[in-house]
Amino acid sequence: MRAAEKAGRTVWGTSASAETAAEARADGFDVTTDTDTALRRAAEADALVVLAVPLPALPGVLRRVDAVAPTCRLTDAVSVKVAVADDVARFAPRARYVGGHPMAGTSTSGWSAGTAVLFVDAAWVVAADDGLDTDVWADVAELAWACGARVVPAAADEHDLAVARISHLPHLLAAVLAAVGAAGDDDLTLALAAGSFRDGTRVAGTNPDLVLAMCEGNRDALLAAVDDALGRLGAMRGALASTGGLAATVRAGYAGRQRWAATRDPQGVQVRRGGRTSLAALREIGRRGDVVTGWSS
Amino acid sequence: MRAAEKAGRTVWGTSASAETAAEARADGFDVTTDTDTALRRAAEADALVVLAVPLPALPGVLRRVDAVAPTCRLTDAVSVKVAVADDVARFAPRARYVGGHPMAGTSTSGWSAGTAVLFVDAAWVVAADDGLDTDVWADVAELAWACGARVVPAAADEHDLAVARISHLPHLLAAVLAAVGAAGDDDLTLALAAGSFRDGTRVAGTNPDLVLAMCEGNRDALLAAVDDALGRLGAMRGALASTGGLAATVRAGYAGRQRWAATRDPQGVQVRRGGRTSLAALREIGRRGDVVTGWSS
Repeated sequence: MRAAEKAGRTVWGTSASAETAAEARADGFDVTTDTDTALRRAAEADALVVLAVPLPALPGVLRRVDAVAPTCRLTDAVSVKVAVADDVARFAPRARYVGGHPMAGTSTSGWSAGTAVLFVDAAWVVAADDGLDTDVWADVAELAWACGARVVPAAADEHDLAVARISHLPHLLAAVLAAVGAAGDDDLTLALAAGSFRDGTRVAGTNPDLVLAMCEGNRDALLAAVDDALGRLGAMRGALASTGGLAATVRAGYAGRQRWAATRDPQGVQVRRGGRTSLAALREIGRRGDVVTGWSS
Repeated sequence: MRAAEKAGRTVWGTSASAETAAEARADGFDVTTDTDTALRRAAEADALVVLAVPLPALPGVLRRVDAVAPTCRLTDAVSVKVAVADDVARFAPRARYVGGHPMAGTSTSGWSAGTAVLFVDAAWVVAADDGLDTDVWADVAELAWACGARVVPAAADEHDLAVARISHLPHLLAAVLAAVGAAGDDDLTLALAAGSFRDGTRVAGTNPDLVLAMCEGNRDALLAAVDDALGRLGAMRGALASTGGLAATVRAGYAGRQRWAATRDPQGVQVRRGGRTSLAALREIGRRGDVVTGWSS
C-alpha cells in the first residue's frame, strides 16, 4: 500500500488484525477490518485486488472474494504460486487471477516491517501461464513497476522450483544450522560464533509461522530441493569419514557461488501490451534471467 | 603483523610467497622469504613466533622451527587446535607452544586481505590445556590484547568441537546450498536469488583451499557436527514427505537463533599472571562465555 500510494495510486485495504489496521490508519492509510466492504468497493471500481496473507489464510479470504467481488482483478504476494493458483481455482474460480511474488521482505512482520521503498529494484515475479487474462497481467506488471520493481515473467511451477532452491531451502538449512549450533550445554560455542554462523543462520530468525506457511505450501518442489541437499551432504559425510577429503563438496559450492556472483545484470525488455506478446514469449524472458521493464509501442 | 606493529611491537616475518613478502615490504614491513633467518632472529631475541599458515603447510614449517629455533615461544593462528598441537608434538616437540585462534578473517586471502584492525573486538582463543607454559600463555594473551581482541581460554578439544558447529559446518552447508542453487540449466533460479541465498552461501565464496585445510584438519569434531545436521535434515525430509509439516525443524532453528541473539556480552575477567590462576580456572571462564581482559595485581 505504501509503495503504490507513493506512486500516486489510490489505495485502500483490509486486515484481519485490528492492530495492523490501526497502525496503518495512524500512518494515514484507509484500512479497515471489514473485508467485505473493502472488496465491494474494489468490485465497484474494478480495482486490482492484491492478497497479501499467509497461504493458510487464503481459502477464507478467497471465499469472501467469491461472495463479494467474484470476477475482480486479482493478484497476490504469496511466495508460492502453484498452491495459490489451486486455491483460487477452488475457492474463487471466477476471479481474473494473475499470480505475483514480489521478492522482498524482512525477517520481521506486521505493518512496521514494510516501507514505501521495500520493492525498489526487487524482482517481482508475475505468473505467465497459458490461459490467463493478459489485461490483468498488464495491470499487475504496472503495479510492480509503480513500486520500483523489475517484472520477471515465469510459469507458476518453474517459479516454485526456483524458490524452493534459493529461498525455502536456505531457510531450512539456516534452521538446521542454528539448531546444531545451539545444541550444546556450554556457552563457549555460541560465544565463539562469528560471521559464518551469523550469516548462515540469519533467516532462521524469521517468524516461524511465516516460514512454515511459505515452505509447507511448496511441498513437492521443496522435497526435490531437500533431497538434492541431503544427497550432497550424505556424500560429503561419506568422503569425510573414509578419505577425510571434502574437495568435491567445497569446490562445487565455490563454483556455485561464483556462478551466482557472475550472474549478469538482467536485460530490460519491452513487450507489447495486452497479449500481443505471447505468454510463452514472456516466460522465455524470465527463463534466460531477464526482466520486463515496459510496453513497446 | 600490521596489528602488532600498530600496537608498538617490533615485528618481522617470513612468507613462502615471494609476492606476499614483496607486498608486505612495499607497506614498510620487514618480511623475507628466508624462513631460517627470520627464525634464527626470533631464537636470539626470545621472540614469540606466530605461525599463520594453512594446516597442510605446518609440518614443513615446524621442521624449520625445530632445526633453527627449537625451544622458541610458539603460537599459531590456525583454526583448529588439536591437529596443530599434534603436529607440534611430532615435528617441534621442544617448542614452548601455546595454541591460538584469532577468530577474524575475510573470504579473501593474501597480504591485501588483512588490516591492522582486523582483530579489534574479535575473540582470540588461547589454548589452556594442562601442562603448557604459563609464561608463554601470558605472552599470547598480551599479543591478543595488543591487537584489540578478547582472550577466550579453552581446551583444544573443546575449541575444535565448538568451531566445527559454528564455523566449519556453516562453510559446508553454504557449499551445499550454493551447489543446489546453481544446479539448474535455466538462468531463472539464480536470477531470483535474494537475501536468504546470498547470506546462506556467502562463505562458499571463500578460497576453497583455505576451507579444505580448515575443515579437513578438524575431521573428528566435524563428523559429529555433520551427523547432527544430517539427522535433523533427514527427520525434516521425513516429516515433509509424510505429514507435510516442518514445525519441529523451523521452531528449533528459531529457538537456536534466538539463543544466539540473546547471548550476553562476555564479562571481562582479570586473572593473575604467570600460572597463579590455574589453567583449569581459565578454561571455566571460556566455558561460561566470558573473556580474559587483563592481569589482576
